[in-house]
Amino acid sequence: MKNASRRNFLITAAALTAGAAASAMPLVTMKANETAKYPVVHHVFFWLKNPSSTEDREKLIAGVKTLSKIETVRALRVGVVASTEKREVVDNSWAVSELIFFSDLEGQATYQTHPIHLEFIKNCSHLWEKVIVYDAVDV
Amino acid sequence: MKNASRRNFLITAAALTAGAAASAMPLVTMKANETAKYPVVHHVFFWLKNPSSTEDREKLIAGVKTLSKIETVRALRVGVVASTEKREVVDNSWAVSELIFFSDLEGQATYQTHPIHLEFIKNCSHLWEKVIVYDAVDV
Repeated sequence: MKNASRRNFLITAAALTAGAAASAMPLVTMKANETAKYPVVHHVFFWLKNPSSTEDREKLIAGVKTLSKIETVRALRVGVVASTEKREVVDNSWAVSELIFFSDLEGQATYQTHPIHLEFIKNCSHLWEKVIVYDAVDV
Repeated sequence: MKNASRRNFLITAAALTAGAAASAMPLVTMKANETAKYPVVHHVFFWLKNPSSTEDREKLIAGVKTLSKIETVRALRVGVVASTEKREVVDNSWAVSELIFFSDLEGQATYQTHPIHLEFIKNCSHLWEKVIVYDAVDV
């Protein structure tokens, strides 16, 4: 048995041991080309009106984090620019990123009009100057 | 015990049952604001030279998938444009996306110069016209 197969076997064994509840747990084996449980990827990049304001950045980060309460948001990761090598193809001009995973397009649609999302826009949209959204689906 | 706590408890129980091997498995509980295991997010968007060529798109997808063999690539998801609502802020002009998670910036640096990555560039760079890279780190 190869290492990867063995690992998957152990994960399955662990899930079986934990019983029925485990089958509903948000377990994602992230490596390689396996089909992800949450195949709809919504990545938003925000540019601040006041890029030098740490306070504005923190407010926006806190605002984005409230979105995890929306039931169709299966995973939420909030990011800032990583200090990787500066290269021409790397856009590091943004301030805050919001990476959300959904189970399906319906989940994404529910999120768009959800009161928590609308509240976030109401409270935080004055902070940003520009937004770019990328909506991807796993292949 | 709240549902979420109970679920985490069950995950832990499952991991303990599976023993030492399980502690190394790439298990990620994705919901909410938990600290992710792989906090460095590398999202690349490719625009094809021949956007209407399904063959070119498939070649690029296959090429991107080879990157999962790089040992510091903790997770790889390859995407195409999702059919979400057309809105001004949504950029749906790209063709293929590559979403990679690393444990740390060193892992990202290793990936950049890895032979498998260089081979991918050699074999596939003729397919794309434009690339944008976003490197984020979780907060």
